[in-house]
Amino acid sequence: MDLVNHQFRLAARPVGLPKPSDWQYTEEPVPEPGDGEVLVKVRLISLDPAMRGWMNDTRSYIPPVGVGEVMRALAAGEVLASNHPDFAEGDFVTGLFGVQEYAVVHGGAVMKVDTSLAPLPVYLSTLGMTGMTAYFGLLDVGRPVAGETVVVSGAAGAVGGVVGQLAKLKDCRVVGIAGGAEKCRYVVEELGFDAAIDYKAGDVAAGLREHCPKGIDIYFDNVGGEILDAALARLARHARVVICGAISQYNATGAVPGPSNYLSLLINHASMTGFVISDYPDRYAEGLREMVEWFVAGKLSSCEDIAAGLENFPDTLLRLFSGENTGKLVLEVA
Amino acid sequence: MDLVNHQFRLAARPVGLPKPSDWQYTEEPVPEPGDGEVLVKVRLISLDPAMRGWMNDTRSYIPPVGVGEVMRALAAGEVLASNHPDFAEGDFVTGLFGVQEYAVVHGGAVMKVDTSLAPLPVYLSTLGMTGMTAYFGLLDVGRPVAGETVVVSGAAGAVGGVVGQLAKLKDCRVVGIAGGAEKCRYVVEELGFDAAIDYKAGDVAAGLREHCPKGIDIYFDNVGGEILDAALARLARHARVVICGAISQYNATGAVPGPSNYLSLLINHASMTGFVISDYPDRYAEGLREMVEWFVAGKLSSCEDIAAGLENFPDTLLRLFSGENTGKLVLEVA
Repeated sequence: MDLVNHQFRLAARPVGLPKPSDWQYTEEPVPEPGDGEVLVKVRLISLDPAMRGWMNDTRSYIPPVGVGEVMRALAAGEVLASNHPDFAEGDFVTGLFGVQEYAVVHGGAVMKVDTSLAPLPVYLSTLGMTGMTAYFGLLDVGRPVAGETVVVSGAAGAVGGVVGQLAKLKDCRVVGIAGGAEKCRYVVEELGFDAAIDYKAGDVAAGLREHCPKGIDIYFDNVGGEILDAALARLARHARVVICGAISQYNATGAVPGPSNYLSLLINHASMTGFVISDYPDRYAEGLREMVEWFVAGKLSSCEDIAAGLENFPDTLLRLFSGENTGKLVLEVA
Repeated sequence: MDLVNHQFRLAARPVGLPKPSDWQYTEEPVPEPGDGEVLVKVRLISLDPAMRGWMNDTRSYIPPVGVGEVMRALAAGEVLASNHPDFAEGDFVTGLFGVQEYAVVHGGAVMKVDTSLAPLPVYLSTLGMTGMTAYFGLLDVGRPVAGETVVVSGAAGAVGGVVGQLAKLKDCRVVGIAGGAEKCRYVVEELGFDAAIDYKAGDVAAGLREHCPKGIDIYFDNVGGEILDAALARLARHARVVICGAISQYNATGAVPGPSNYLSLLINHASMTGFVISDYPDRYAEGLREMVEWFVAGKLSSCEDIAAGLENFPDTLLRLFSGENTGKLVLEVA
């Protein structure tokens, strides 16, 4: 094999939104896989808000990406060569393959996926970390009960869209918050939410009063900032706020403004709980089985917003933060 | 009976710290108790940070005190006359008697206390709402496990001092945060905390690093503001933050600054939960029995800071917010 690998490496730690100069586009030969390793041809790269956090030199749930390292990314691809007994050439797999065309990784860090059950992009979306984040965040942290009101921010985004569908499966009333009329139409008409509030059109607090007359039982937050504050002000007794992300804050250059209305937790005997999907290693397989069943039965849909070309990675990543994507943003490696 | 009652009524809703003109000192004849009612001679008035919240015209867990109404307050006193079968003249009782010398209240809202087990002030303190707030907040919301690290703010205050003692009873490592060297000495030497951090002396974050080398498992917050933020930055995995109060913010005239470090909940799979003692009507009696047992067995101490004279109510209340009291602040009605 004389394969050439192209990669995006972190050139500098961004201040605010990542700039072109924060990236280095590199080329190197693809190494041979060693003992226990597999060589993967990367087909699809998952673009996730969490990637912005990985670029900062701060203590978090995983170490930051080092300057000079290939940018960390979840991805899906095809096994070209395997020195690991669980994988064979032609297998479709997912893993942390990075923003590059080829990855050599240990088989223990690779998951095989069945493309007869769902197309490959779905394994980065509803049946990937994205969907499983929605699954554990809503079901384990949020603990929905039939008849409760669930509000989801970033509702037209990758995680939010799955959260809303799962909440409907649990017979909840589901209200999405999204930016723009088209996204609001999408979450109601295509994902089956009961209502949507367009935060770009105005008053989120008024929308929450209208659509959550009995208050919010579960607020699943992907965005932080003012929308989190508006939701806190509308909590029902014993509400659960699930902190999944805070995309409005990831490029902040100053201190993140905290939620002023947090004392609503006190008067409502409510909780605000954070989590990341890596908290659930022992239950991931069990959860995925249930998600696959729902998907195959047509109870869950999956929507991917697929951009093309590894070279477009820097600009495509920025679409997450400008709110341009609907559904799961994926980069197809040409 | 020709008794005269003196009262403090809310004259105006305060902006910031209550001013003298926010109060009206009134005098009126004591009414006769009606059917089912008891007449109580108020001996001791409980001064609580929550009273400041009751003075605001905002939605909360109980309605605000109306302008012109007698200021709401927990208090302890002696029954002078009873038209309720559960009470007789000479009984010692507690209830929401208000800031006044005499109260006529329905017997259903009055609790009899046994002064052979503990002196009357203790029933506003360790064996009153204060102690029970510590009890349910720490044990039910915080759920301490032996060996965990518990941090308490307002540690020399009424609730904080009980929280720390209860956490020691549960074999936790207990670190208090208090203002001033004397308060820090008090919580360590008299209440048995393992360590104390003087927030007036400087860097709370450094103190938390020193005294919580494995992070904070439970943070019991009475103060809010910067101290809450410092604690959030030091959470251990699966930490529980108990929001009991935010005394640093109760007199704020602008928006309460939210805790900037709330995303620490996300990376640590941690929760922040609020509560008020009125959330526990069904379990109050059971909890009080256990607290009385601990108190009688000498496992819990109670400390009251007793000021004298109903006429000093406005100034005495302000001592809560300037951090002058150690232990439970009580006003003795002359």
